[in-house]
Amino acid sequence: MNKQASIGGTANGGLHRLALSDADKEVRDWFVDQLNALGMNVRIDEIGNIFGRRAGTDPTAPPVLVGSHLDSQPNGGIYDGQLGVIGALEILRTLEDKGIETSRPIEIVNWTNEEGARFQPGLQGSGVWSGEFNLEIEYERTDRNGARLVDELERIGYRGDVPAEPAEDYEAYFELHIEQGPYLEANDKHVGVVTGIVGLSWGEVTFDGHADHAGATPMHLRSDAAVPAAELVTNIRRLPSRLGERTVGTVGSIDVRPDSINIIPETASVTWDVRDPSDEVIARAVEQISADASAAATREGIEYDVSETVRTSSVKFEDRRIDSVQAAADELGYDSTKLLSGGAHDASHVADVCEAAMIFAVSEDGKSHTPAERTSWDDCQRAVNTLANAVLDTAGVDLR
Amino acid sequence: MNKQASIGGTANGGLHRLALSDADKEVRDWFVDQLNALGMNVRIDEIGNIFGRRAGTDPTAPPVLVGSHLDSQPNGGIYDGQLGVIGALEILRTLEDKGIETSRPIEIVNWTNEEGARFQPGLQGSGVWSGEFNLEIEYERTDRNGARLVDELERIGYRGDVPAEPAEDYEAYFELHIEQGPYLEANDKHVGVVTGIVGLSWGEVTFDGHADHAGATPMHLRSDAAVPAAELVTNIRRLPSRLGERTVGTVGSIDVRPDSINIIPETASVTWDVRDPSDEVIARAVEQISADASAAATREGIEYDVSETVRTSSVKFEDRRIDSVQAAADELGYDSTKLLSGGAHDASHVADVCEAAMIFAVSEDGKSHTPAERTSWDDCQRAVNTLANAVLDTAGVDLR
Repeated sequence: MNKQASIGGTANGGLHRLALSDADKEVRDWFVDQLNALGMNVRIDEIGNIFGRRAGTDPTAPPVLVGSHLDSQPNGGIYDGQLGVIGALEILRTLEDKGIETSRPIEIVNWTNEEGARFQPGLQGSGVWSGEFNLEIEYERTDRNGARLVDELERIGYRGDVPAEPAEDYEAYFELHIEQGPYLEANDKHVGVVTGIVGLSWGEVTFDGHADHAGATPMHLRSDAAVPAAELVTNIRRLPSRLGERTVGTVGSIDVRPDSINIIPETASVTWDVRDPSDEVIARAVEQISADASAAATREGIEYDVSETVRTSSVKFEDRRIDSVQAAADELGYDSTKLLSGGAHDASHVADVCEAAMIFAVSEDGKSHTPAERTSWDDCQRAVNTLANAVLDTAGVDLR
Repeated sequence: MNKQASIGGTANGGLHRLALSDADKEVRDWFVDQLNALGMNVRIDEIGNIFGRRAGTDPTAPPVLVGSHLDSQPNGGIYDGQLGVIGALEILRTLEDKGIETSRPIEIVNWTNEEGARFQPGLQGSGVWSGEFNLEIEYERTDRNGARLVDELERIGYRGDVPAEPAEDYEAYFELHIEQGPYLEANDKHVGVVTGIVGLSWGEVTFDGHADHAGATPMHLRSDAAVPAAELVTNIRRLPSRLGERTVGTVGSIDVRPDSINIIPETASVTWDVRDPSDEVIARAVEQISADASAAATREGIEYDVSETVRTSSVKFEDRRIDSVQAAADELGYDSTKLLSGGAHDASHVADVCEAAMIFAVSEDGKSHTPAERTSWDDCQRAVNTLANAVLDTAGVDLR
């Protein structure tokens, strides 16, 4: 793991390996070398997803897919994504070392641009592959310097020839990822058996008031955009306790203009991020945000605009795949718990194509997207062992 | 007025004439030419304030001072400050044209850097002149490019030799300025008789929470800095209705980090601007902001810091100077009203040295610091006529 973490590694032990950057090219080259060294059949598809296939003894059986992503956030951590790919690679190395054959083929995958940090949206490789995103549209995405995604794929040599779509039926997809939250640690659990991925709504409310002199304008003659914006932040904080046991609501960004200590704000924008396992609850949350924005704007006598930018449905994994992960953790004697993923993952898209499941490893202090991101070596081992057992159980070890 | 407004004039009819810029040099040169053309005695002091003196018939009588400032905000309007200087200049021209003598000398003044846009603090020329600010400290102020104020004074040729202090006693100071608020217009008044300038407190509260994943972090495990920040904005909006009839409170700036839609804010800063005619009310307001910040931070379980950056005392003009302005407006038959200035002006400092008074002209729609700033020609005339009558009443027209 240390070898690949040094590619794009930062001085403070983090990882800066943006999608389709030079560092991403370097780690991809390293990854392909590892797959070739294991004698695997390597394919690069049109969006740059890298697949490695280890044959099974039953050539007609749908394969088991396992993997995650090798790109990182700017100044991110060395576990997010990496643990799932490197863990899968370790499993394949072990099978090779020990000469273990499986009935089903096993495919390892590195999805392109999971993070969505350099090019938006994230989950791009899995999104195109699963048919959720359109390849030609994604090719035209540009980074903040205007570089097109397709040109960057060409530049680093990872615009492959293989169609970015499932070439055949897959039996199942397993993804190991760090939790990126504090739930496992707070509950003294070491392995998370993920039962699904919550749905999400992202959006922005903009209030449009009037910029006036903070000293010379009587209170009752103001149209202060910051006031309804602040009320909305408070309302979004209260939403979860009204809507559902697992609802979360966050305002991550507040933008006030002209942003001067002695000028009454003319405009104020507030983003929302609301998640819940129930798509119906998310719809209700968006309705309530809209109603709260309207009421706050009316009180201040100003205009407002509500714009939802992203809505994704929740994913419920199939019981038999969850059971497979749970059984693996139980057999290994690990303290595990079922939990929902609050973050989106490539498994969200892959679940549209085949049955999927996820395993979470402990995120110390819930940290992610920072060099301080950490999973203890013991917890890495537990998570990878659970993944290995679930994959082998599904692929079928051939003891001939 | 059109002549000087073209110096630093913007395409959309505004004014961009930052203190000690090339445009400021050009308008100063123009101003000095006008004073010389009127045969006035011109003095430039060490901080660049420009004085022009018209002799009185009684050489021992303390002079009447009248003026304002010729610098502007970035992309500001053509009335703020300008109206007070150009109005005073018109009065002196008229006296000269008509051969009118006054008992007291009349001095016109253009104060350096009233706006505080390029160099902070504002009210700099009047602040040094009145002894509130220290000349050597102000000389060392730098703009955002690192240019020192003293060097810029030298560069444009306005670091004068005359000590920046009152050379003698002054009878009174009159300043005409636009209201920069909607009060006159909202009350159908054409002239504002300013009775004083409110005191002010500026400061900032910073909340220090924990950046976590917006999807993966349960609500009860969050330390979200945006939540107490939003509560404080709401509290500051409520402050005035608890504290005083004329209290105003504004949050002009909110800064949230890391400012990402799906990351719980780690830090959030909120500025305050609180003004009131009573210094005691301002002290109570700051105490309440501090208490509100503490309560909001405690609810969220996070740290906070309260820092007051500016506190200025209120100014109450002398009754006889207010009466003089009121009488002038009444004699001219203008609809006038007494009001407090919510903004600080050079008169705030000058009032420490001699008795002062101000006249406000209508600001259409309350706008200022924007090219949309406007005072009708009729309202300009009314304000300048009121100023002229108050100045002449005080200076004493000598009918010999």
